[in-house]
This record gives sequence, structure tokens and C-alpha cells, in this order.
Amino acid sequence: MSSSISPIRIGIVGVGKIVRDQHLPALAKDRDYQLIAAASRHGKVDGIVNFPDIETMLGVVPELDAVSLCMPPQFRYEAARKALEAGKHVFLEKPPGATVSEVEDLKALAAKQGVSLFASWHSRYAPAVEAARIFLASTNIKSAAIVWKEDVRRWHPNQDWIWQPGGFGVFDPGINALSIATYILPAMYITSAVLDFPVNRDAPIAAQVAFRAANGSDVTMDLDWLQTGPQSWDILADTDAGQMVLSGGGSKLAVDGNIVHEEPEAEYPMLYRRFAEIVHAETSDVDLAPLQHVADAFMLGKRNVVEAFFD
Amino acid sequence: MSSSISPIRIGIVGVGKIVRDQHLPALAKDRDYQLIAAASRHGKVDGIVNFPDIETMLGVVPELDAVSLCMPPQFRYEAARKALEAGKHVFLEKPPGATVSEVEDLKALAAKQGVSLFASWHSRYAPAVEAARIFLASTNIKSAAIVWKEDVRRWHPNQDWIWQPGGFGVFDPGINALSIATYILPAMYITSAVLDFPVNRDAPIAAQVAFRAANGSDVTMDLDWLQTGPQSWDILADTDAGQMVLSGGGSKLAVDGNIVHEEPEAEYPMLYRRFAEIVHAETSDVDLAPLQHVADAFMLGKRNVVEAFFD
Repeated sequence: MSSSISPIRIGIVGVGKIVRDQHLPALAKDRDYQLIAAASRHGKVDGIVNFPDIETMLGVVPELDAVSLCMPPQFRYEAARKALEAGKHVFLEKPPGATVSEVEDLKALAAKQGVSLFASWHSRYAPAVEAARIFLASTNIKSAAIVWKEDVRRWHPNQDWIWQPGGFGVFDPGINALSIATYILPAMYITSAVLDFPVNRDAPIAAQVAFRAANGSDVTMDLDWLQTGPQSWDILADTDAGQMVLSGGGSKLAVDGNIVHEEPEAEYPMLYRRFAEIVHAETSDVDLAPLQHVADAFMLGKRNVVEAFFD
Repeated sequence: MSSSISPIRIGIVGVGKIVRDQHLPALAKDRDYQLIAAASRHGKVDGIVNFPDIETMLGVVPELDAVSLCMPPQFRYEAARKALEAGKHVFLEKPPGATVSEVEDLKALAAKQGVSLFASWHSRYAPAVEAARIFLASTNIKSAAIVWKEDVRRWHPNQDWIWQPGGFGVFDPGINALSIATYILPAMYITSAVLDFPVNRDAPIAAQVAFRAANGSDVTMDLDWLQTGPQSWDILADTDAGQMVLSGGGSKLAVDGNIVHEEPEAEYPMLYRRFAEIVHAETSDVDLAPLQHVADAFMLGKRNVVEAFFD
């Protein structure tokens, strides 16, 4: 993009862990953005003006071009609607909402308002994902397995919202896996699912999901939030061209044990590149397939009650 | 439709209660159809050739133009795919599948095959639904309430599949309510839900769902499967033009207590009229909004465990 275009004046809403870890560093390095305001119930961003809520921010800082919404998904829709109605471009952290229907409504509103809506899926921008997509598109996939096992105490310490209804539980990391899988594998649909709910929580701590792909091959997904030690964020595929392993959350690609692609991750910088791209192209980028599979898993899935979970 | 067009040669799959009660009488009276075959694990239809499964039926009776799929939703996708691949038009009983993604896949396959796919919603063809839609479109809706309370022992005696994962439970009648609501009310999305699961069952027996409509008004849905005595299948709306009550599952419309529309129901005859219409127009009719709301309710909803249910 030409440097002659003015930077996108952006405000960030919901200042929590992901904003500090990823959004602020990515925005600080990108000359196409100027971060000018933040709104959050609890967090603050140093060096810019902070507000308690998005309404106040939109009212006091009308020169904002765009907002990035990073609060828990249960609260994203109302904020997105206010921003779109005020004519702002909207970047949605993943998952883009608490329901599929509400995001479809936002998509229609963005089109009506002539602004850009971005349902971001950061894992799709992991470094080896595109190489995996190209590899799989060139061969026949016999079967695939998604294995996403991590330690919730390490990655989501005391995040109560994630355990509440609409907080997704283990599908919060699982939707990252699905955002990659739906990008690199053929269209697929869920045939069965088992979801384990801790007796004291309203979201699952583990899930096993079986899919069938349009070509008839089987895809399994194994999600677990109690994995200590090495963490697993892998997609494996048995293909006519060999055994593919996309590991490290999409960062490393190997075929038959030989590493064919590995580079440092730069997911959030690439997300903000993509957002600038759609803003300048006056278009939107809203793919709901990952969220749709999660909704389908909850609808079709059998629920087991398992032992209580405490942080 | 002109009587010079040959009748649609149709086969019916999954011969259970709804087929005997509704599909067979509707087809028997409609000169645009010729029912020539049936396939079912258990049931049989007198006077035509019967098969144990759809594969055998499709192989032995290649002159079939269309199939009507009435087995439980968990088994509908595979059968639909086989029928579409064989070039048949497909009528799907409600709900059209066990997941939203699989029906989207069928929709794409029907388009590719150049045949018609019909996701049928029989309650949309209840006699007063169109009058309710016209009334609501002409006024401002302040709030609405969906109240669907029936006795599962009376309407679904010993139907084990309905209690299994993917069987929908109380959302099986509830999706009828949603098929009307999504047709007569503005676009809406779920803001919260509570689902009651009997301790010995894998599907809910009651649900309370809160929606917000695009115009900001609140819509509630109250589903209950333990209502004995009078049964409630009502949609109420408080509007600038008065209090609307659409009762009897869409059969009777009253405004401020005055009945404005009432006539005998003819849902299934009208469904088969609609199917013939889309077959002759070479188009499909697949609206997934009712199923999407059910998936969203399962994803966003809080689960309560309630006392065991026995038929």
C-alpha cells in the first residue's frame, strides 16, 4: 500500500491480555495505523485517551476511522453495531460473535453502511498455513486429524468469561484449529461430537468431534484443555503425497518427516495488514465456517459431565 | 400448474408417524405426484414397491424423479447426498439436517447437479401465517413472545431418536415456531438461552430463549414439553396497531381479541404444491434461519440438568 494514504485512525475496545500481547505491538509497528483511543471497563492503554465504554469513545473522538473489538464474544455484537452505525470500519477479534446469526446481521449492516467488517482468524495467518493449503490442494487427502491440546491454566488463567455460556470453553482454542482446517481442507460437516463439561462450569473442557469431508474422507478433532508439558496444536493429514504434519499452531509444515516450511510467526501484524487491505478496497472479509462448526458441535454433540475445574 | 406436465414420480424414505399422518394423504390427493416407491428400515407403504434402504430403491427404480426424506435428522444427509448424486430432486422434512454445515453442502450439491432441494418448514404453511406476516410488516413491533408448550408423551410417544444427540428435543417443535417467527418477524439474534436437559436424556425438554430484533425490540421464546391439558402454539406481538395473537400453530390470527383470519390447516398439501413449483421452476428453496437459531441456542445457552424423563 502506498505511504501517501493517510493512516487509519483506530480505537481499541476491551483492553485485556490479547490486546497487550498482540494488538498493541502489531499496531505500534504498522505505519498504516494511528492508534488514537481505547475503551475498556478495566484496562488502559498508556499515551492515548481512554474511555470507560465504546459509546463515549465514539462520541468524543468522531475522527476515528475504525475500531478493533477485543472484548469477550458475548459483548461484541452491541459494540459492533454501534460502531457500524457510526460509520466506522470494524475489526472483530475471534470468535466474531456469540452466535452465527448476529454476525450475519453485522455483515448486512456493514454492507448497508458502506464500511468494512473483518472477522479475523489469526491462526489462518500462521506462517506455514498457506504452504499447507497449497500442498493439500495438489494431492488426495485420505484422512485428517486435528489435535489441539493445551493447558488452560497457562493460557487463560482466571478468565471467567471463557467458562460462561457463550464463552466457548475449549472451543476458544479449538476455533483457531477450525479456522486453519476450514481454510486448508475440503468442505466438511460434523457427523458426531462429544463435549465434556466440568460439573461447575458452563463451557466444555474437552471435545472429540468427527467430521466427514465432501470427498468422503474422515476428519477427527481432539480438543483438550488439561494438557500439561508439551502443548499440541497440530493438523495431520494422510495423503497420496505422504504424511503431512502442520504443527505449532500452523507455524511448521513437514511432509514424511521432512520440514518443508518454517518461519517465525507474525499473525497479528498480518491481520492488521489484511484489515488495511479490505478497508482500502472497500470490501469485507467475514468467513463464518469456523463458528458454524462450533455451533453445529454444540447442537449435535453429546454432553458428558466431568469433574469440577478450578483455576 | 398445467395438467399437461407429467406427474413427478416420487419415492418416500423413512416411513414413520409423520409420513402416515401427513405425507401419504397429501401425496394421494395431489395429481402432480405419483408415489411409486418407499424405503424404510421398519415401515412399509401398501400398494407400492418397498425397499430396506434408499440405495436399493435408487438402484432398482431409476425412473424416480424425486425423493422425500423423512427419517430422523441424524441420518438425512447421507441419504440426501445419494439422491442428489443420482440426479433426483430432494424434499427434506424438517429439520433439514443435524447440522447447518451439512445442509449448506447439500445446497451446493443440488446447484451443481441442476436439481431442486427443498428444506421444508410445514408450519410456515399454516393458514394464518401469511396474514400475520402482512399485518406485522405494516406496523411497528414493540415486543414479541413465542410460546410453544405441548405434551411430548402425546406427540412423540417413544420416539427415542428425538432424545438422542442431534435429535433436537423440545427444539423439534420449537423449530416449527422459529420457522414461523423468522418468516413474520424482523431479523433477530439470540442474546441468551437456558436449556433444561433431563438427567437421563441427551436433548432438552424445555428452553427459554431471548432474542433481540434488528429494530431493537425484544423477542422471547418459551418452549416446554411437559404441558398437559390445552396445548400452546402461539406467537404474540405488541404492536402500534394492537396486540396480535397468532395461535394454534399459525392457524388463527387475532388483533386486539378480534379474529381476523381462521381457516382449516392444509400444511402438507401446500408443502407438496411448493415442492412441485420449485421443481418446475428448476430452483431450490433452502432457508436455514430456523436451524441456525437452534444451533446458536445450543452454543450460547446455559445447560441445566433437570429430573429424569420417562415416556
